[in-house]
Amino acid sequence: MHKTGAARLLQHVRVVLTRTSHPGNIGAAARACRTMGIGQLWLVAPLRFPDPEATARASGATDLLEQARVVDSLPEALRGTVAAVALTARPRELSVPQLPPREAATRLLELAPAGDVAVVFGNEQSGLSGDEVALCQAICQIPTDPTYSSLNLAAAVQVLAYELRLASPGGDALRSTGGLLEPAAFEDIEGFHTHLLRVLAAVDFYDPNNPRRLEGKLRRLFAKAQLEREEVNILRGVLAAVEAAGIGKAGQR
Amino acid sequence: MHKTGAARLLQHVRVVLTRTSHPGNIGAAARACRTMGIGQLWLVAPLRFPDPEATARASGATDLLEQARVVDSLPEALRGTVAAVALTARPRELSVPQLPPREAATRLLELAPAGDVAVVFGNEQSGLSGDEVALCQAICQIPTDPTYSSLNLAAAVQVLAYELRLASPGGDALRSTGGLLEPAAFEDIEGFHTHLLRVLAAVDFYDPNNPRRLEGKLRRLFAKAQLEREEVNILRGVLAAVEAAGIGKAGQR
Repeated sequence: MHKTGAARLLQHVRVVLTRTSHPGNIGAAARACRTMGIGQLWLVAPLRFPDPEATARASGATDLLEQARVVDSLPEALRGTVAAVALTARPRELSVPQLPPREAATRLLELAPAGDVAVVFGNEQSGLSGDEVALCQAICQIPTDPTYSSLNLAAAVQVLAYELRLASPGGDALRSTGGLLEPAAFEDIEGFHTHLLRVLAAVDFYDPNNPRRLEGKLRRLFAKAQLEREEVNILRGVLAAVEAAGIGKAGQR
Repeated sequence: MHKTGAARLLQHVRVVLTRTSHPGNIGAAARACRTMGIGQLWLVAPLRFPDPEATARASGATDLLEQARVVDSLPEALRGTVAAVALTARPRELSVPQLPPREAATRLLELAPAGDVAVVFGNEQSGLSGDEVALCQAICQIPTDPTYSSLNLAAAVQVLAYELRLASPGGDALRSTGGLLEPAAFEDIEGFHTHLLRVLAAVDFYDPNNPRRLEGKLRRLFAKAQLEREEVNILRGVLAAVEAAGIGKAGQR
């Protein structure tokens, strides 16, 4: 299958989970990676793996889970990479550069054409050791509420995988569809307001001799709605129907 | 406790889970919200709640879980809100504006000072119904790999909660620390290169009569390192130590 630019680049990303205690988190992390198109899952000395709980939580992402590389130490998982970022729950040694997730994702993908890049996550309780962090070129901390910063491991993987996908070419393809809607042209809107005031006058709701206040309020209302061409047509249709019904003309209000 | 700007605004955010099947997902969603400082969790007709599995997966976020508002229908959960965004796994009716997560978060927080705003998530299997989507002003789809788009419910909540935190005032406070490091000044770097070439000449590694190639390569190498003041001091120390050891002068190379 032909891969898109995003898919190709994300194949070079290794999500590395070190000394994970709960197999459920491994499965959930696999699912998080798979949904974002991350290519590789590496497991450093997992406590229990393979495990039915991992398979269950991976849901349909069993392909990535089954292809996970299990190794004994972090250096083995980083062999062949050109850059690695360590996830930490708190600021560490200040001498290591610290990158927010968005910037970490961007920088890693800039380097991915040159070789594999890694995002390294520690144990659920103890995080990464100082020695493990020292093997990485930067640390990354996901911003959290200062009163409760305990992100679930798979949730942290999800955030980084999401940022990596957004940073990949075409990864932000889901744009606002606001721009796809056809905005009404000036003359359409003016035509509508003219029509509206004519109908409102016919039903005695509008006094052309004292127009300012009402017309301004109506214009403001419809300006906020940012009318599309189709919506103007609908509104004109309503006005025409009111006129056709003979309301006002017959003095039935 | 005095709340920061981010905390105050995020108190106005309701994460609404409708007809959730698995209590574990409710707990994990509560934890995801709590880590990002989201203020309110609303549950529309959950299949099982409260439930020990929800409490277990909420980890320390039991406060938010215990304060969750349980209601029978989505209109009840949206009463009092000024805006709601519906999460969908696939594009829906094109007439509803579609916003990517980042833009949805930004727009919701712009409206939050005027009242509560909601992010609405559907059932794990069936998502949101058409009637439920119609109660919201926009839909939001998290970008996923086209070959596997099955995000876990709590993982989707985590992504939106993360974007809401980043969009809140001061929520992106964890910036790159690159700027905190003290870059070396031009004269520091020039002094280092002069010193380096002097030592290299002393050890016969550098020929001052044919300097161009080596000096250029060394300058390129250290330019890429974006030397900090302290690093220049270290390198100068190394050079001084080499000189002090009498290497070169004594012709020991």
